[in-house]
Amino acid sequence: MDTLLIIGAGAAGSVTAKKAAMNRDVFKNVHLASRRISSCDAVAAQCVTPIKTHQVDADITEAVIQLIEQVKPDLLINMALPYQDLTIMDACLATGVHYMDTANYEPREEAKFSYSWQWPYDPKFKEKGILGILGCGFDPGVSNIFCAYAQEYLFDEIHTIDIVDCNDGNHGKSFATNFNPEINLREVTQRGKYWKDGQFIEIDPLTISCMVDYPEVGPRKSYLIYHEEEESLVRNIKGLKQIRFWMTFGDNYIKHLDVLQSVGMTRIDPVMYKGFPVIPMEFLKELLPPPSSLGENYTGRTSIGVIFDGIKDGKQKRVFIYQVCDHAVCYKEVQAQAVSYTTGVPPIVGAKMLFTGIWGGTGVVNVEQLPSKPFLEELAKQGLPWHMKELALTDQADLFAVKT
Amino acid sequence: MDTLLIIGAGAAGSVTAKKAAMNRDVFKNVHLASRRISSCDAVAAQCVTPIKTHQVDADITEAVIQLIEQVKPDLLINMALPYQDLTIMDACLATGVHYMDTANYEPREEAKFSYSWQWPYDPKFKEKGILGILGCGFDPGVSNIFCAYAQEYLFDEIHTIDIVDCNDGNHGKSFATNFNPEINLREVTQRGKYWKDGQFIEIDPLTISCMVDYPEVGPRKSYLIYHEEEESLVRNIKGLKQIRFWMTFGDNYIKHLDVLQSVGMTRIDPVMYKGFPVIPMEFLKELLPPPSSLGENYTGRTSIGVIFDGIKDGKQKRVFIYQVCDHAVCYKEVQAQAVSYTTGVPPIVGAKMLFTGIWGGTGVVNVEQLPSKPFLEELAKQGLPWHMKELALTDQADLFAVKT
Repeated sequence: MDTLLIIGAGAAGSVTAKKAAMNRDVFKNVHLASRRISSCDAVAAQCVTPIKTHQVDADITEAVIQLIEQVKPDLLINMALPYQDLTIMDACLATGVHYMDTANYEPREEAKFSYSWQWPYDPKFKEKGILGILGCGFDPGVSNIFCAYAQEYLFDEIHTIDIVDCNDGNHGKSFATNFNPEINLREVTQRGKYWKDGQFIEIDPLTISCMVDYPEVGPRKSYLIYHEEEESLVRNIKGLKQIRFWMTFGDNYIKHLDVLQSVGMTRIDPVMYKGFPVIPMEFLKELLPPPSSLGENYTGRTSIGVIFDGIKDGKQKRVFIYQVCDHAVCYKEVQAQAVSYTTGVPPIVGAKMLFTGIWGGTGVVNVEQLPSKPFLEELAKQGLPWHMKELALTDQADLFAVKT
Repeated sequence: MDTLLIIGAGAAGSVTAKKAAMNRDVFKNVHLASRRISSCDAVAAQCVTPIKTHQVDADITEAVIQLIEQVKPDLLINMALPYQDLTIMDACLATGVHYMDTANYEPREEAKFSYSWQWPYDPKFKEKGILGILGCGFDPGVSNIFCAYAQEYLFDEIHTIDIVDCNDGNHGKSFATNFNPEINLREVTQRGKYWKDGQFIEIDPLTISCMVDYPEVGPRKSYLIYHEEEESLVRNIKGLKQIRFWMTFGDNYIKHLDVLQSVGMTRIDPVMYKGFPVIPMEFLKELLPPPSSLGENYTGRTSIGVIFDGIKDGKQKRVFIYQVCDHAVCYKEVQAQAVSYTTGVPPIVGAKMLFTGIWGGTGVVNVEQLPSKPFLEELAKQGLPWHMKELALTDQADLFAVKT
């Protein structure tokens, strides 16, 4: 195994490609494809070793199949839009190529991401003898692997999981989203949801918040939102009683969100403009700064981790596993900010696991079903060092005080 | 003179048509035309007497000429978009028909309204023997006529004029504009401007504000913006030292404006979307509730007037002339809210002045150059009663404290 095909040359995909180009001991051949070959060429020009570029429309399975037949990759990493997960998976299935992505499928016409479309590929992938690795970015991805690690090495029983995600960076723009604006806003504007005692409970968007004390950042107001890793973690973490996901949003971000929603700019149904159908959310994306443009002059850090409460050797135990990433340091290395970096690096770590035989098998799996320890060791070497600390029962008091 | 042609069947134009239909003693024949004849037919169905409807594209002078030749009006009232003032004036010039409008020309590609395009028609209108009456809505329009009245009957010298415009209504929507959103937002988002000692002084948008005490409403925060009547009033009010225009905006309106500007939704240059040029401000208009839809359930009042400071018989004198209009009362009469009503009724009063020979002459004039008293008497009869009160020097203290 030595050939890698990456589809998607956006903010995160470009990091994945650049990181692949830094790991030529494992990835002998690196191919990058996207809708616009000029985007790929721009990334290739910044890679430390040569990579090949291609044009592909990932909405069209046949186009992806043709590209695969030309490139003959061992693994296809999908860094394109979540809408394109299924067409790309179909192409992998048709050609017998391993598949990996960082975000689960959602239909274009409905902001409702779920594994319910991708998990059913499991028997087909098994039959074909290939592996589909879902959600191998940071969150989902590293967050899931923190959970797998905690389950295997730190706890006898995990009772509650709180995934906490803070971007304390400042990009100097009045408003911008840190990854694809369309996907970001779809995620935030949908109803919140958490899982407790065997079922998901919905809440109105952004109606539950608390202060989370983020390592190397400090306490920040965080909102309970639904995030896709919860769907797989409730299956794969045994004995779990509750899982919640928290994300920081500044007042200015919330203000923008309020207004954009109230005027209808986050709608995903077409609105006629001079006889031409325009989807407001997609048009908004054209107006906002592309996330890949935010890297330069971006200061501050991301601080993302998972807080566990459970039992070890008969005693209550709380642990916080986290990773802190500096925007400016990322930019210096790969000309991208930390949100793109934390999403774009883990697929390369996962690919290394697969190419070196540490990860393997067939079917469709989430990353917490694969060995966690070697992944985390490699993750630290690839630019995302992580930390673990045991919490006192008085730590993160505001978070644990929110009874949901 | 007995035939009236109204072009424009939007929120204000529909009021003008309905009011014309209530004054058949003067207007024997009433014609309403707009881009969509269905809009005209909907208005006609609500008129108390029958009016005729037509389709016309007012961007095309030749189309307007054809309509005029068919209808043979004595006066054309332009209630269309300000972009269309010149094509319509050209049509009047070609056919020898009197012209009236309520908002001065501005080019589509630049939010810069000014009389500099329309005033040069004066010699051509004179030569053709027709009259062009500019700005005969409420403000500009009634506000100018209040000034003419004050100059002729109340003061020896007017030193300062503050036009104050408050809409204290509540339409129950999270965000909507009270007239054409595109025109409204272009007006508010441009730089502020006031006139002092012979010259216009520019300020950043919405950077000067004060509390104005509005009759029948109370004190409301008001922002200094530029408004088109200032350009003609500084010519026509003699001895003037300062003129300013103030408008109320609620915190929610300002918040929406901030965000819409910061994301680029008020831009008037085209942005490519799937290969199709989309002008953000125009697209926004498609998303917002049409002003004509705001009438039902609209509560509260508009309170608009002019505050004068000057000299009479050697002594300082301050006068406030104002009009208060109730949204629900307007809706009951003509199925429109007060902002549309106050804009749509004055053209009918002006047309009555012209048809009955009280207003006359040739060339292009602003309404303050025409007899004010008969207009104001008729205005009160047509649903817009107005009031006048002398102010103590301690009244409107906050307004007079703003030294610009």
